[in-house]
Amino acid sequence: MSPDARIAVDAMGGDEGLAVMLAGVALARRRFDDMRFLLVGDEARIREGLAAHPNLTAASEIVHAPDVIRGDDKPSQAIRRAKTTSMGVAIDLVKQGRAAAAVSSGNTGALMAMSKLSLRMLPGIDRPALAAMLPSLGDTDTVMLDLGANTECDARNLVQFAVMGAAWARTTLDLESPRVALLNIGTEALKGTDEVREAAAALKAATHLPMTFSGFIEGDRISRGNVDVVVCDGFSGNIALKTAEGTARFVGDLLKRAFRSSVRSKIGFLISKPATQLLRDHLDPNNHNGAVFLGLNGLVVKSHGGATELGVAHAIGVAAKMVRDDLLNRIKDDLAHFDEQATA
Amino acid sequence: MSPDARIAVDAMGGDEGLAVMLAGVALARRRFDDMRFLLVGDEARIREGLAAHPNLTAASEIVHAPDVIRGDDKPSQAIRRAKTTSMGVAIDLVKQGRAAAAVSSGNTGALMAMSKLSLRMLPGIDRPALAAMLPSLGDTDTVMLDLGANTECDARNLVQFAVMGAAWARTTLDLESPRVALLNIGTEALKGTDEVREAAAALKAATHLPMTFSGFIEGDRISRGNVDVVVCDGFSGNIALKTAEGTARFVGDLLKRAFRSSVRSKIGFLISKPATQLLRDHLDPNNHNGAVFLGLNGLVVKSHGGATELGVAHAIGVAAKMVRDDLLNRIKDDLAHFDEQATA
Repeated sequence: MSPDARIAVDAMGGDEGLAVMLAGVALARRRFDDMRFLLVGDEARIREGLAAHPNLTAASEIVHAPDVIRGDDKPSQAIRRAKTTSMGVAIDLVKQGRAAAAVSSGNTGALMAMSKLSLRMLPGIDRPALAAMLPSLGDTDTVMLDLGANTECDARNLVQFAVMGAAWARTTLDLESPRVALLNIGTEALKGTDEVREAAAALKAATHLPMTFSGFIEGDRISRGNVDVVVCDGFSGNIALKTAEGTARFVGDLLKRAFRSSVRSKIGFLISKPATQLLRDHLDPNNHNGAVFLGLNGLVVKSHGGATELGVAHAIGVAAKMVRDDLLNRIKDDLAHFDEQATA
Repeated sequence: MSPDARIAVDAMGGDEGLAVMLAGVALARRRFDDMRFLLVGDEARIREGLAAHPNLTAASEIVHAPDVIRGDDKPSQAIRRAKTTSMGVAIDLVKQGRAAAAVSSGNTGALMAMSKLSLRMLPGIDRPALAAMLPSLGDTDTVMLDLGANTECDARNLVQFAVMGAAWARTTLDLESPRVALLNIGTEALKGTDEVREAAAALKAATHLPMTFSGFIEGDRISRGNVDVVVCDGFSGNIALKTAEGTARFVGDLLKRAFRSSVRSKIGFLISKPATQLLRDHLDPNNHNGAVFLGLNGLVVKSHGGATELGVAHAIGVAAKMVRDDLLNRIKDDLAHFDEQATA
């Protein structure tokens, strides 16, 4: 990352408030000490909050924005207030080139709409996708997209998502030829919707790209570590992601009940606590926080609205890595190769 | 259940072979001793297999079918061999009224296609749905449908699934007015596809039905026990179900790793084993085996291809309960009420 790389942070977005956002940025600052921050929002309140974080104060600048996007603002309402809101100003800093990436814990729909309007798409991309790194049993995390930016997707969208997801996996997971699969309800060629089958045919033919197309994958294999990138439409992707989160919590709750069910099991729990704590850390959504809008002509990271200080720091880390890896140009290169081949 | 209620079992379907199917039926027979079985398949092999189960022999009859549907048979191929295959003959026994329900662990697509063609739809139903009872944190299981019978569904299909799912919850879970929700990517009225929003409007208006419409539900709430019936199209339903299965296994695998990570955690595991065993039983897919094709004019239960003896017994139990509860007529009544109101 260049020494003056800056990350714009929407300090006012999210359900947990300004203090958690600032604490998260301060934590990220300790991990990435070559990074500088543009803290966007109510100047007086941010200044007050920074008093608790002298280390962050030295590495940051406040950019005033009087207004805030609320959780229930519709994207259309949000767009009209882009110039005055902390979220809108943070995105605009990326557009102006004053920041290398923006991070917000605010309203996803508004963030997406504002980012699209302000930053526009990369050449060759019709729609951006929301992508995230999910925990897996493999050596690395697994990239999954789209997680909810697009309710319906055609085959062309899915192919573009595959190219972008593979580029992210190559840069962040350091893989030469990531294994890419399409999420489907079976692995046979005839399964699924027309869109999924058409996308599979196109990806099978795109042998020149730095990825290995692995065909279809079913929901029960997402976290096995057999593929590096899982591609799907935003409706089923969002449902899969949330079902996975809900099931992990469900199993955790059952485990708690089980451990509390007898004196014997309580003792067993106390003894094995260091081990179960590792598991808890591995599954904590805050340790996987930070979804990326891939396909925009600029880097925007969505942090979960309910993220803790740790979660916010993780999302900022995701942004920092993308900046350092020059992700935007990697994706542009891959798309250019794809188009060359398609028009050859 | 009437004393002569019979369940037709496709003894040849499934990945685990005839011996596991017969052992499963024998186990079910011990649990439901008023039940009789029509074991369909290769007569000589079934007779041979029955030697190990004298208790089952007394309660069963063999119906010969020389042929078997394979896992990779396409539905169209399967239909042409309906008359000679164990799966086709089992379904036909239901059509003839010789069996009250059919159970198969064979090829899902073939089972669906054959059942539709042979048994036809209930009046008022356009398409059948694959439904199952999933574990939840609530007092009862949660009904979920469609789990993969229909890749794409319109609003009308989703409404019919809701009516059928509620009827199953009323009879099997003994609920007066089951809480029904539509699976979506958000809970706000504007979220999701046109199909899901239209279905929500129709269900909101159907206040005369014995169900409580709870609006939209997201993937992370499916197993919380806040609703009794979750309705979705077969594509996202299949992905949600398999993602839940995969995530439960994923967490289980991480837990195993955690417990094996040190001597201390191994000791803790041994002490708390009775408690974690309860959890394992609660999550074992065999204890939730048996998905139902709702909407057919006949009862057909799909057992998982890899089900163990316990799983097969559970699927047969699902069939037995549906027969005992006269589910088919309950669904017919609800559909008639729905149509009266719609045309009033």
